[in-house]
Amino acid sequence: MGKQSKVAESSWENLLRIFTVPEAPGSTLNRLDRDISTNLSGFLGEHIVAEENDLAVIEQDFSDARIPEAPAFVSEQTQFLLDKVVSQSVHTASPSFVGHMTSALPYFMIPLSKIMIALNQNLVKTETSKAFTPLERQVLGMLHRLIYGQPDDFYDSWLHHSERRLGAFCSGGTVANITALWAARNRAFGPDGEFPGISRGGVFSAMRHYECEGAAVLVSERGHYSLSKAADVLGIGRDQMVAVETDGYNRIRPDALVATLKRLKQQRIRPFALVGIAGTTETGNIDPLDGLADIAAEHGIHFHVDAAWGGPTLFSERYRPRLAGIERADSVTIDAHKQLYVPMGAGMVLFREPSALGSIEHHAQYIIRQGSRDLGSTTLEGSRPGMAMLVQSALKIIGRQGYAMLIDNGIQLARRFADRITALDDFELVTEPELNILTYRWAPPEVQALLGKADDALRQRINDHLNRMTQSIQKIQRERGKAFVSRTRLTPSRHGGQAITVFRVVLANPLTTDQVLRELIEEQRQIAAEQRESADFAELKALLASHYRQG
Amino acid sequence: MGKQSKVAESSWENLLRIFTVPEAPGSTLNRLDRDISTNLSGFLGEHIVAEENDLAVIEQDFSDARIPEAPAFVSEQTQFLLDKVVSQSVHTASPSFVGHMTSALPYFMIPLSKIMIALNQNLVKTETSKAFTPLERQVLGMLHRLIYGQPDDFYDSWLHHSERRLGAFCSGGTVANITALWAARNRAFGPDGEFPGISRGGVFSAMRHYECEGAAVLVSERGHYSLSKAADVLGIGRDQMVAVETDGYNRIRPDALVATLKRLKQQRIRPFALVGIAGTTETGNIDPLDGLADIAAEHGIHFHVDAAWGGPTLFSERYRPRLAGIERADSVTIDAHKQLYVPMGAGMVLFREPSALGSIEHHAQYIIRQGSRDLGSTTLEGSRPGMAMLVQSALKIIGRQGYAMLIDNGIQLARRFADRITALDDFELVTEPELNILTYRWAPPEVQALLGKADDALRQRINDHLNRMTQSIQKIQRERGKAFVSRTRLTPSRHGGQAITVFRVVLANPLTTDQVLRELIEEQRQIAAEQRESADFAELKALLASHYRQG
Repeated sequence: MGKQSKVAESSWENLLRIFTVPEAPGSTLNRLDRDISTNLSGFLGEHIVAEENDLAVIEQDFSDARIPEAPAFVSEQTQFLLDKVVSQSVHTASPSFVGHMTSALPYFMIPLSKIMIALNQNLVKTETSKAFTPLERQVLGMLHRLIYGQPDDFYDSWLHHSERRLGAFCSGGTVANITALWAARNRAFGPDGEFPGISRGGVFSAMRHYECEGAAVLVSERGHYSLSKAADVLGIGRDQMVAVETDGYNRIRPDALVATLKRLKQQRIRPFALVGIAGTTETGNIDPLDGLADIAAEHGIHFHVDAAWGGPTLFSERYRPRLAGIERADSVTIDAHKQLYVPMGAGMVLFREPSALGSIEHHAQYIIRQGSRDLGSTTLEGSRPGMAMLVQSALKIIGRQGYAMLIDNGIQLARRFADRITALDDFELVTEPELNILTYRWAPPEVQALLGKADDALRQRINDHLNRMTQSIQKIQRERGKAFVSRTRLTPSRHGGQAITVFRVVLANPLTTDQVLRELIEEQRQIAAEQRESADFAELKALLASHYRQG
Repeated sequence: MGKQSKVAESSWENLLRIFTVPEAPGSTLNRLDRDISTNLSGFLGEHIVAEENDLAVIEQDFSDARIPEAPAFVSEQTQFLLDKVVSQSVHTASPSFVGHMTSALPYFMIPLSKIMIALNQNLVKTETSKAFTPLERQVLGMLHRLIYGQPDDFYDSWLHHSERRLGAFCSGGTVANITALWAARNRAFGPDGEFPGISRGGVFSAMRHYECEGAAVLVSERGHYSLSKAADVLGIGRDQMVAVETDGYNRIRPDALVATLKRLKQQRIRPFALVGIAGTTETGNIDPLDGLADIAAEHGIHFHVDAAWGGPTLFSERYRPRLAGIERADSVTIDAHKQLYVPMGAGMVLFREPSALGSIEHHAQYIIRQGSRDLGSTTLEGSRPGMAMLVQSALKIIGRQGYAMLIDNGIQLARRFADRITALDDFELVTEPELNILTYRWAPPEVQALLGKADDALRQRINDHLNRMTQSIQKIQRERGKAFVSRTRLTPSRHGGQAITVFRVVLANPLTTDQVLRELIEEQRQIAAEQRESADFAELKALLASHYRQG
């Protein structure tokens, strides 16, 4: 423990030291700092204990709500973090952690993040961000161009325009979606005669002025939960985030959409936005965006595409056509901390029209003054860090071709994994991967056979048992810490709309291989076998036995 | 340039290298990484070129909206960042950068941030954050206790309760304020009989059900702009964020507040929240919180305190009494990236009642399921980074006593600076520092004398000139890059409510000394003297001459 890293007692001199004196070369923290730079995977492998402790046990180390009176040594806190936090965190970068939308990060992200943190810029205004403001605008322009592909002079005109922004940078896809719908709402119910607009007047006077019984947003039933949250926050109401039925591929049904629009019209509820999904969170499917663009245009409503996950598919020449129509969207959400491989906390919403964000523009006396280039005048958040620096670096260092390879790899890996599951007797592929997400479950061949000829009631009983088995297998596998898949509930038409609990696999980590997935499946099969004594397993067997006795 | 840091061409092998091979020890990036750890102030001093280039010039380096087709070398991008971004960023940590709410960071923040980034946890759910979830809950508990000081058994019961949260962690004060008002709105217009509550039904049906002509939030005219933004976002409308008059000390006037409440009642507009400010952004004043708590209680409305800036004053035994009444608030916003000395992107809102966040609770099938400990079910944001780790570390390493010293130092430094300005002939203190923020302007003694006896029209003419002078001096000083104050516009009663442009100084950096401030003032005086040839200076002189000729 280096002397310099100590703050032994509360004195002004000691306090100033922690602001002026770096960690000593021999200190625990300095050593970790170096380890992470030179051997991140080693650091994670060594320190992250994959075996899961029960949360209730972990909580005991975080049970004191008192702020300590006296200061602790840096080395003491560092050791605490290693023992209690790092070692009990989740190895999100692991190739076998395929349950959520996290991945290994490119190595350069770690030192670059450190530069970003050390500079501690605040993007709300140029006075605290200077070059970071044009940099963030450039990143927004790059993503705008990826989606909308406008000509050079468009970007020459608008990229750095003091009264326009091509999008808003934010902490993630949820804020991006809220921002898009906020802008759409304010545009749809804008100033009109005496009415000052919904921004000033609020939802209530807007509905009265425009003689509506409500305002609605339409999205498929597979829409991300952030959209209902947006409807709640924006004062529209969750019930007015209207869930439209999907087809067998989890894509919105245009006929159902048109019928819904008709119904809303009859109810005098005004739909002001239609959300298409490019990569549903649970199954990775893509709505028919071009068709949605037609419907939105016909009805004069804002067309937003939630491409938080699937947006970077646009990098791939091969798979880009799956998102055809996205260039007709009024706004698009893309998360940088997902498939742009940037650390947590970076999302964007891009707007086709440079003037679109005008509907949420706001000013103050001390910053974001009218006519300034300050980005804070059109963001939902106020103070924001310089994450755009990481996005720009990734776009330049990985390049379009590199991202294309990453996207292609994930989709092809998912395709091979899906084929493998289909070929296995004791697993059932529940949703085909359209991108790099798929869902499946464990179901022995005789159970699958029985499901095939069961009536609804029997099917329900079987599914109930299978659902609990899926839940157990997922939990046990997570606890063993070698691999991780997530789980969700779907209502596939193949199962007559019954709720099916499934394993969900997201394949975006370039270090995940076919071999990793083979082992993952093997472990699940093993866990299922170990469950032979469980009540659900026993009842499944009983159901099978009784059926075959009858049959 | 180390070979390992190169990604020369698009190939899968090269791509995998950037995910698996660390930066080579000799690479530019690795060297910077080390420099920052061992000598941050040296790094900043060496690389941040304080002299300001015009934004239009900087923009030229960020004008290409094309995503490069081929990958760039890491070393190439690092050099670009150094030359074009780092060197043109703002030295927010500088002791003479006293214009905004930024400060030097404690050294340990830099390596700890790196650990946080490397772990890349996502706090939306325990499956991607494990120990980080109890850690974040502990931090929320610590801040809750700082404000509300509940007994041990309160925290034993609620800190880790799966169905309760003591607050919400977020990217900053704006999201914190929106979250507080969102929860308040949903609570005030909750489910009632057939009505499903405003969360599901929206603002329009809520107003009809509760027979109101609108919903309002009250705050002093010095409220942060994020509050009007919140009113816009939440569908209340900016006009229903009612600005209540302040007294000569920028504090809300309780009599004006009561009159406003009466008027709203007559208009059948229902106020559902009253916001008290603990540290106004522009002047650092504190509303009479205890009195506001009484009024809120009497009218049965949610009492929120925006203590984004001033909250940490609670650490100081000496100055804590200035926030008396904050413990009666229903919710309180505190920013960690301000006076908790954590890097950009960390705010919190605490709720007195553990059940308060229930009104904005939401669930999904694949995460934040009912009964889970997942923090994402009560946050406005979705995916969030593990910033709580930095807050916990700061609270433990600095300790209550350390924070008290930091707070006391800033307030006392501001007091001395204010006294100095008052003692100077050619500067005018515009607002006294109640905490560590003050405003002032340059105004030669003869101009001050004339202002003292001028009628409104003459006063206006003089102030117009002074305002432009203040604006020039602030801009020129910023451009010279030695020191930075911000500017804002106030309407002090002493100036008959005329708009006055002022320098704004925020004193939270422990490295800022009296000497730094003396030099800052000296430079401003110097710049003013250099402006003798300006039109405003000439006209001021003419005004003076004409007056004294007459007089």
